Amino acid sequence: MLVIGIDPGLTTTGFGAVRKVGSRVEVVAAGVIRTDKDLSAARRLDGLYRDMTELIADVQPGVMAVEQVFMNRNRLTATRVGQASGVVMLAASLAGIDVFEYSPSAVKAVVTGDGSASKAQVQQMVARRLGLAEVPSPADTADALAIALCHMQSMGNMVGRLTAVHGGRR
Amino acid sequence: MLVIGIDPGLTTTGFGAVRKVGSRVEVVAAGVIRTDKDLSAARRLDGLYRDMTELIADVQPGVMAVEQVFMNRNRLTATRVGQASGVVMLAASLAGIDVFEYSPSAVKAVVTGDGSASKAQVQQMVARRLGLAEVPSPADTADALAIALCHMQSMGNMVGRLTAVHGGRR
Repeated sequence: MLVIGIDPGLTTTGFGAVRKVGSRVEVVAAGVIRTDKDLSAARRLDGLYRDMTELIADVQPGVMAVEQVFMNRNRLTATRVGQASGVVMLAASLAGIDVFEYSPSAVKAVVTGDGSASKAQVQQMVARRLGLAEVPSPADTADALAIALCHMQSMGNMVGRLTAVHGGRR
Repeated sequence: MLVIGIDPGLTTTGFGAVRKVGSRVEVVAAGVIRTDKDLSAARRLDGLYRDMTELIADVQPGVMAVEQVFMNRNRLTATRVGQASGVVMLAASLAGIDVFEYSPSAVKAVVTGDGSASKAQVQQMVARRLGLAEVPSPADTADALAIALCHMQSMGNMVGRLTAVHGGRR
């Protein structure tokens, strides 16, 4: 199962696609989508939507995990992040892909085992899990990979629990 | 010029399209788009996007005016309103329509002359301006019509000012 993680934003949207290969998790694609600051918000959402649709067609993820907008920020920024996440989720839905949303604290808790971990701790854990020599850059890419790992691990735990309940093994 | 006003929401999105006929402003279309509460957020955004795209194709507005998300609400509600507004603005942009955003206080100030007017005062003014016997219902429809009127009046004022500056007459 290929999971694409998304850290949405109107200016910069991070993405990171990962897949399980044996016991390892490897990065399939990672980077950012940027929009032109000189355009109107609607045109920037349009650009983000088109780029995201193209990315989904290229990467062919089986599922999308999106960071849920965190509203304790500057008001206009929060609005713009909400609009960007809406457009990203739409692109996934129109491509027939299921979308899961995770709060920032859930991502921290699942990836590091500590819901109050620092951004740096999360990024270092992402690099370690993915066997990367350095923390992925820019930060939006590392955040997106953390979200993808969070989903993969959450699903893994669920399968583990279900397996335990049913007494089976995979 | 046909203006469509939008009061975005994931559960209910109000719309109201108005046009100037001589010195009067008349309602061309007004109502709400609702989404199924049993679906995931992504699927609901998908439904909203499809319905909005169809509405734009039917009504053929020249411009869209959207209420800017007001963030002083319940966090998850604010996130969902942001996502809905993003999808609505995207539908307009993909249809080649310019989008203008207005804050709730700007709408109140332009429509009633008082930025701190009550919701009821705004709705009564909307009914009066549009020559309606009653306040449009549900409230999302009345709010959407207020946003459309706000845009029409803002543009009218601007044309008025430009005309004054250039010493011309229309």
